[in-house]
Amino acid sequence: MEFDLIELIRARASVRREDVLLGIGDDAALLRPPAGHALAVAVDTLLEGVHFPVGTSPADIGWKALAVNLSDLAAMGATPSWALLSLTLPGADRRFVEGFLDGFTALAEPHRLALVGGDTTRGPLAVSVTVHGFVPEAQALRRDGAKAGDAIFVTGTLGDAAAGLACLDRERADADRLLTASVDSRKALIGRLNRPTPRVAAGQLLRGVASACIDVSDGLLADLGHVCRASGVGAVLDADALPLSSALLTLFADDARDFALRGGDDYELCFTAPPERAADLIADLSRQGCGVARIGRIVAEDGLAVRDAAGRSVAVSASGWDHFRS
Amino acid sequence: MEFDLIELIRARASVRREDVLLGIGDDAALLRPPAGHALAVAVDTLLEGVHFPVGTSPADIGWKALAVNLSDLAAMGATPSWALLSLTLPGADRRFVEGFLDGFTALAEPHRLALVGGDTTRGPLAVSVTVHGFVPEAQALRRDGAKAGDAIFVTGTLGDAAAGLACLDRERADADRLLTASVDSRKALIGRLNRPTPRVAAGQLLRGVASACIDVSDGLLADLGHVCRASGVGAVLDADALPLSSALLTLFADDARDFALRGGDDYELCFTAPPERAADLIADLSRQGCGVARIGRIVAEDGLAVRDAAGRSVAVSASGWDHFRS
Repeated sequence: MEFDLIELIRARASVRREDVLLGIGDDAALLRPPAGHALAVAVDTLLEGVHFPVGTSPADIGWKALAVNLSDLAAMGATPSWALLSLTLPGADRRFVEGFLDGFTALAEPHRLALVGGDTTRGPLAVSVTVHGFVPEAQALRRDGAKAGDAIFVTGTLGDAAAGLACLDRERADADRLLTASVDSRKALIGRLNRPTPRVAAGQLLRGVASACIDVSDGLLADLGHVCRASGVGAVLDADALPLSSALLTLFADDARDFALRGGDDYELCFTAPPERAADLIADLSRQGCGVARIGRIVAEDGLAVRDAAGRSVAVSASGWDHFRS
Repeated sequence: MEFDLIELIRARASVRREDVLLGIGDDAALLRPPAGHALAVAVDTLLEGVHFPVGTSPADIGWKALAVNLSDLAAMGATPSWALLSLTLPGADRRFVEGFLDGFTALAEPHRLALVGGDTTRGPLAVSVTVHGFVPEAQALRRDGAKAGDAIFVTGTLGDAAAGLACLDRERADADRLLTASVDSRKALIGRLNRPTPRVAAGQLLRGVASACIDVSDGLLADLGHVCRASGVGAVLDADALPLSSALLTLFADDARDFALRGGDDYELCFTAPPERAADLIADLSRQGCGVARIGRIVAEDGLAVRDAAGRSVAVSASGWDHFRS
């Protein structure tokens, strides 16, 4: 049965690339990396009930499993090229795999990402994707280059995915209100949870411009904290500058800021750059159709602070999403 | 807690390589592949109770998770370079991770394999390893090059891992006999199950020599079947030429041939080459300390046949290990 699944996956691996010398079907894939570029490689495993809610559609799982990995490449400024897929399934469920591949392929095709290998096995539902991409060595975006005085930016809007998860949580006391309040807002937030958009083009635009970059997977405070620790700096965030979607404000006006600071799974890029680059950066990203907000500044002193417009400190805990605390 | 685990893993990632531009700790690793080589990439996920028995020591799990992946590189003739590790654990068990890394590192170090990234998450115990290696493009070993008339070879001995699993199976009626019969033989077989030796040096020696190659993970018949299907040929095996260990013969005299034909998890290389190369190949591999047996020949007609010394057909079923039938 494993081999039928692999045959099915091979038949659906629609992206062809000249740098794939040998794809699915041998002991390993054979690939030809381009000269003069660094190879960026990341892996993320998604488990049912941890990284996506029980009941998520196979197509959404396929999309998200690839999206979170492409987001890692985006955060390095890398151009995606190849993926390997390790699929653990409770049974050889052809319909699940076809749905999964629908979602996976819908995201792989526009990025010209070739599925070149992987394995399938029987067990509790889990998806592990390894992605590869290229970036000119000197232009790769890292976490450790933020400098005091840099401005802090974030793409898109924050907190939507966490709000989407809250919408799905039927045990919330106000679930009925949410269901009847605004179908469109609810759909928008759940869509952000299930079908995040990796900021691949934005990451490439930031090559050699951003001083540090990370994708917001664990929550803004947690991920910006990683940047600050790696760079040996601190950050002051402007609470009123956090980009919030109208869907989030419609359904969670009171919690919106908290979702934006702490919610995981948004897969936006948080990056730093010298403030004199801000105007150009915002214009360039906007031209891509990618919203971007300037949300704070890097400071020399350790720690994260969040201030309101009057400069008053907003109490926050530094915690974000942590799969071992969930 | 995830970050403590990652810090622990980073501290234990002992192999340093100049072609690792950025290792564990950013959104992706940054690597520098060598010019003029194909990049070989494989991933394998191991689950408790499927790929290793419940109760396997953390160090053995760490060794085996890497070994099965290095074996895929060996089967391509590739030289290992980098690995990513995706670890799913029921809890943040520091002792498990330290034991796991002991086994992983014991195998990574002699191969100068650098651990460059990965992730950790909470869930049913699972280990997914992605490995990378290099091989000169034209010399990579594939499954699809076997030709009628080629001799078939296998390294080491076959059936030991399956016999080791049988030794561990306490529900076997004759478990007591095994336990008292021969402690050394039992240990040897279980050792082959838990600590397989990937034939990395042998694979490199076969570059540009073997016409096809595969590692024996699903069982000789199943894996040779893959080679035959990919190459559009068939095979005739000499049942009496199958290399059997004294431990296997001591404990499973009656089942030894069956274990050798069908048992999975041996991670020996099965390869084909023109018969006139046989003497040199056997001498070269022996010089490496790698035993090799000539076990049959490739024929033009489809299908696998197994014959005894008198030329009589030995009945076999073509099935090997299949994780969706287990």
